Amino acid sequence: MNDTDFLDAIKWTEDGLVPAIAVDHKTNKNLMMAWMNRESLMLTVENNVAVYWSRSRSKLWRKGESSGHTQQIKSIRLDCDADVVILNVEQIGGIACHTGRESCFYRELQDGKWVSVEPVIKNPSDIYK
Amino acid sequence: MNDTDFLDAIKWTEDGLVPAIAVDHKTNKNLMMAWMNRESLMLTVENNVAVYWSRSRSKLWRKGESSGHTQQIKSIRLDCDADVVILNVEQIGGIACHTGRESCFYRELQDGKWVSVEPVIKNPSDIYK
Repeated sequence: MNDTDFLDAIKWTEDGLVPAIAVDHKTNKNLMMAWMNRESLMLTVENNVAVYWSRSRSKLWRKGESSGHTQQIKSIRLDCDADVVILNVEQIGGIACHTGRESCFYRELQDGKWVSVEPVIKNPSDIYK
Repeated sequence: MNDTDFLDAIKWTEDGLVPAIAVDHKTNKNLMMAWMNRESLMLTVENNVAVYWSRSRSKLWRKGESSGHTQQIKSIRLDCDADVVILNVEQIGGIACHTGRESCFYRELQDGKWVSVEPVIKNPSDIYK
């Protein structure tokens, strides 16, 4: 078996990407969703730390590189259609979002409006110095 | 305020879609990820039942229409970039996956291979009659 067979099993988009959902491995809470290409998933598996593909910057995105909020991989899942992966992670620092919140999914629909329902744990200006 | 302001807040893809992650509202377990367009999210909010957009069939996908495994909406979340939504749902029948499993994310990467780690709860041929 080739070492990259697990990559070939994935149905990549036309752009060569797959959505990756990062989940807190203890609470099951969704922290964020980002995108990966083959290289970033390979690096993630090899190093046990989440590496995404930044679509806006068109480069590898080593999550936590500047903030220190890396994501240690506990397990990786693939869905039935092979077009979405889940990363079960330990979120170092307890903050996944660039807004300083635990999770990027901090807005809830209430009476037709998106309302912030999660606290800022750390001021972003103190995270990205 | 217009009733559809919450839709305008979303950063839709060029194809007018947004990824939607369905989560079991009690266990936080990820059940599936699918896509929505404006109409499907509007219908989801109006009816409190998940309606997706089927990219393969290019039509509205009323989840559970044939299986009975509908998803009752408990709450809806939006992420910081406004380009991913979470549906916290009650999964009727306890089965979200067309393979008869609770979750579509039933394969785990083990020693470089995707291994099925969740049981089939009900035979698909008994679900889709």
